[in-house]
Amino acid sequence: MSPTRREFLAASAAVLAGLPKLTSSVAPSLDGMRRAHQRTATVLLFQGDSITDVDRDRKNDGANDQLGLGRGYPLLVAAALRDRQAPRNLQIFNRGVSGNRVPDLDARWSADTLALKPDVLSVLIGVNDLWHTLMGRYDGTPEKYAHEYRALLDRTRTALPDLRLVILEPFVLRTGAVDARWFPVFDQFRAAAKRVAHDAHATFIPLHDMFQALARNTGPAYWLADGVHPTLAGHAAIARRWLEAVKP
Amino acid sequence: MSPTRREFLAASAAVLAGLPKLTSSVAPSLDGMRRAHQRTATVLLFQGDSITDVDRDRKNDGANDQLGLGRGYPLLVAAALRDRQAPRNLQIFNRGVSGNRVPDLDARWSADTLALKPDVLSVLIGVNDLWHTLMGRYDGTPEKYAHEYRALLDRTRTALPDLRLVILEPFVLRTGAVDARWFPVFDQFRAAAKRVAHDAHATFIPLHDMFQALARNTGPAYWLADGVHPTLAGHAAIARRWLEAVKP
Repeated sequence: MSPTRREFLAASAAVLAGLPKLTSSVAPSLDGMRRAHQRTATVLLFQGDSITDVDRDRKNDGANDQLGLGRGYPLLVAAALRDRQAPRNLQIFNRGVSGNRVPDLDARWSADTLALKPDVLSVLIGVNDLWHTLMGRYDGTPEKYAHEYRALLDRTRTALPDLRLVILEPFVLRTGAVDARWFPVFDQFRAAAKRVAHDAHATFIPLHDMFQALARNTGPAYWLADGVHPTLAGHAAIARRWLEAVKP
Repeated sequence: MSPTRREFLAASAAVLAGLPKLTSSVAPSLDGMRRAHQRTATVLLFQGDSITDVDRDRKNDGANDQLGLGRGYPLLVAAALRDRQAPRNLQIFNRGVSGNRVPDLDARWSADTLALKPDVLSVLIGVNDLWHTLMGRYDGTPEKYAHEYRALLDRTRTALPDLRLVILEPFVLRTGAVDARWFPVFDQFRAAAKRVAHDAHATFIPLHDMFQALARNTGPAYWLADGVHPTLAGHAAIARRWLEAVKP
């Protein structure tokens, strides 16, 4: 028996265990297995800014849509999970929106997050809370970011008490748009994300130091084209870390 | 030392071995490593039909372009290789064109393949040679396919004698567009691809039986939406097999 089939039967058994006793003791039929395949569906939602959005098609935003998932790490994570965990039939969505800061997430949270009733919610937010401030278009601070992020996650926990939360650490590399003005304040934003994640009982995925280490051999633009936005390699590194850390 | 850095230093050493002796015996500088990073570049090219094309952007078809690589298995393979083998700085292109049969590849081979001087060439072609015939728009046979495919690869070997060739087996699942008329003739197309790959000293990647096995647990449309075109899960399965088989 293939691992996939074995995994599927285990999942089926788990589902069937919660259902009324079957009148027959025979093994589930193929149709029965396919019905179970639908019932086991877990919803995984990616939220964030342009790093999550990556050219996703708003008109095709159904579960597992190749256009709707964008071209970044959510697509790469979704591809790996839909393949390796096929029997679970995960329903995966991307609702990242370019330019978003925490208050932007908050403004669209009911429609874009709570309404989808995710079982697993992955959030990457923060770089614009600082970047827009450096550009004079916002008045963000690490304290404000922490306060608003915490409130958003509290609100989420209340609405979805069984949710598994995954918080990605904001990251940059010193190239392109990222210069000396970003430090040390950016490190305070990173620390705030970690603190908020811990307090929300989230899985926290550190990424900033990973990119510093990766860039040593190749230069920064190989991973983050302008110091902020990942290249394909950068997205792949995030996806790899995500899959190692979450194993949903 | 991280595996990435170890791998990079090994690659640097290999490159340096082929260069004039250095006057200094000190370790290569960071700048020196970055220059070596450029010199080691290997070109990997994906060729094929719509299964390879997958919405790639013709206007952004430079190496490693997230838009130009499409949304299918070439993007997934490229993401994995650019991440895990960063020190090699692979230059990866996609030139798949929807609807192509072997003679269509032949017509655009000089500009779209030979001119790019690939070190590794991955080809997936054949399903349209039969499909268009079943639709009455072509007169393909397994013999004609084998003959034309063999001539194309001979021509390629002559132009690029050191090329590493990777041939993917055509595949279908019985759903959507794929009905009883496809068999057993489709199996003869598959056998022809295998024979041609063997004679061309290519790495052959079987995929048809993999999809039959995967579909047993989930139904066919989970992997190949219409029996021919992979879903995101299907593309991920192809990419996984490709990476296992090629290790470029």
